Amino acid sequence: MAQRRPLAERRIVILAEGSFGVLESKTAAGYLRYHPHSCVAVLDSTKAGRDVGDVLGYAHGIPIVATLEEALPFNPDVLLIGIAPPGGQLPDSWRPLIRQAIQNKMDIVSGLHFFFSRDAEFAPLAQAHGVDLWDVRQPPPDLPVATCRAATVKARTILTVGSDARVGKKITALEIAAEARRRGINAQFIATGQTGIMISGYGICVDAVVADFIAGAAECLVVDNADHFDWLVLEGQGSIIHPGYSGVTLGLLHGAMPDALILCHQAQLQHIKRYPQPIPPLRELVRLYEHIAQPVKPTRVVGISLNCFHLSDAEAQEEIRQAEEATGLPATDVVKFGAGKLVEAIQETVDR
Amino acid sequence: MAQRRPLAERRIVILAEGSFGVLESKTAAGYLRYHPHSCVAVLDSTKAGRDVGDVLGYAHGIPIVATLEEALPFNPDVLLIGIAPPGGQLPDSWRPLIRQAIQNKMDIVSGLHFFFSRDAEFAPLAQAHGVDLWDVRQPPPDLPVATCRAATVKARTILTVGSDARVGKKITALEIAAEARRRGINAQFIATGQTGIMISGYGICVDAVVADFIAGAAECLVVDNADHFDWLVLEGQGSIIHPGYSGVTLGLLHGAMPDALILCHQAQLQHIKRYPQPIPPLRELVRLYEHIAQPVKPTRVVGISLNCFHLSDAEAQEEIRQAEEATGLPATDVVKFGAGKLVEAIQETVDR
Repeated sequence: MAQRRPLAERRIVILAEGSFGVLESKTAAGYLRYHPHSCVAVLDSTKAGRDVGDVLGYAHGIPIVATLEEALPFNPDVLLIGIAPPGGQLPDSWRPLIRQAIQNKMDIVSGLHFFFSRDAEFAPLAQAHGVDLWDVRQPPPDLPVATCRAATVKARTILTVGSDARVGKKITALEIAAEARRRGINAQFIATGQTGIMISGYGICVDAVVADFIAGAAECLVVDNADHFDWLVLEGQGSIIHPGYSGVTLGLLHGAMPDALILCHQAQLQHIKRYPQPIPPLRELVRLYEHIAQPVKPTRVVGISLNCFHLSDAEAQEEIRQAEEATGLPATDVVKFGAGKLVEAIQETVDR
Repeated sequence: MAQRRPLAERRIVILAEGSFGVLESKTAAGYLRYHPHSCVAVLDSTKAGRDVGDVLGYAHGIPIVATLEEALPFNPDVLLIGIAPPGGQLPDSWRPLIRQAIQNKMDIVSGLHFFFSRDAEFAPLAQAHGVDLWDVRQPPPDLPVATCRAATVKARTILTVGSDARVGKKITALEIAAEARRRGINAQFIATGQTGIMISGYGICVDAVVADFIAGAAECLVVDNADHFDWLVLEGQGSIIHPGYSGVTLGLLHGAMPDALILCHQAQLQHIKRYPQPIPPLRELVRLYEHIAQPVKPTRVVGISLNCFHLSDAEAQEEIRQAEEATGLPATDVVKFGAGKLVEAIQETVDR
């Protein structure tokens, strides 16, 4: 991966046209949660004039604008694509805006499956204006088929897994790593998806590699970092029961060979989002993850991360109590109440 | 996919240098089992002078030669890459041979992850000599994320799954489809891997698509063919317990949403080939496949396909008896004893 100036040090306009929000623009909302100071404006004409903080509940003081022109006085040098059209392709209607950004010497940072750096229009235009097209999802070359090298590392590996996509696996991994560091553990978040890579500056999008190499990519992430940290906290992807993405989830689980799992769930979510499949009770999901991990490397779910963003603190506490009762495992909402409980559960498991 | 003359009507030299054999050169052996009449020679200097039939036990009367020159008098028009180097890349030592084949106006047919049609040397050389570089693993463009469309088709779908890679999932699917047709059922084999595509002329290599689209590719294979056949018999890939390939296996299972599974196993195999993991007892594997399928679409393993290539008929019968006793399911070796038992088990399930 090419060495780049960290995004946190740049002046970024985030594109979220038509769908800026906590759930609707996952990349925009995720990036703004961790690096709000690097964002000069969000682009969404349907919410123009409002403040980012009023929409998200965090990252206050950043304006939402209707056009790129309105953002130019803030001297932006990056356009970050903060929304993902279905399938990850580029809508033709975005092309004029991308062109305009490049002509204004802004680098493009994108997590789409569509690669800007291979586009017949944008590649030469970027070269002419001296800007960088960073396709975050572009896999490194020459990934191997996994060979269980992750089983031999000294570092302890933790993987967040989920009941569905978009329930908080990335935030849970980030918060566990941060809380562990606060407690003196040499822990590192390891990104496996585009937003995690934008936030941390490092990782592989395991959903964008050729399918034979999913586990191999996960194995590389573990092996390449294991000598530098005591805990590797890997961001999970999708869900083992997701009709579209389960293959990525399982390849990541079998390739990373984690010592412990944290199961992430959105409180009260009944069905896979946009699919008819119901989500089974949490204790059944725990059993399913442990069952499918077992033949490659036995591991246990040691805690529940319950995303209660839509609930009051009191309601969240009640949901957490019910989850603990149902599973017999410690549970928390890492945003509302911190990741301490989960760090302790992991310590008990990996320090034995 | 471009329209091409069927390989079965061509004059093929199969490259299997250094490793021609039933297990060692899976693509060569698989292709020769179904279309021996289209092969004029096999290239393996370490077995030159012998007959293909003496090595494989079938496809008699085809010479093994040491060099491409020796095969040229047979007027070949295709070089088929019959072996897969680890990782699917092209060894540099093969380049002179490929060049020579192209210069002799032979098309190249390859199932490697390496794409001949994108190679800076071979692409222009092929164009200059008017030959076709068929990269069988190249995925079709614009695959979708799966959306459970396979659940709505009228055709019945059967998927072969395995205890390991290379245990007979492709042959089992081919033999079930053939036996079903003999019994008057409008059944079609659907290839999901390179050798299956070479044999049948159609399919998608699900292990070569971008990881997010594994299930989507499987779904397309089902939906695109469901109106033309009563049974779709899909070739499985890898194994749900394979440390390298399980992601592909699960994406295929969840995307195809099969009505019935056939579990394929190589008799007496104790460990995943080239990995330390033991293979669990068959009844546990049955339970694992059914457990992981259930949240997306419940399905059942209805029969066992036991690969006994290395055993006498009497030994094979004893292994089959033990497998039936252990699982309570009908079992057979489809090569030694035919696929009738499995076709009957599928009929009982899908006709209910």
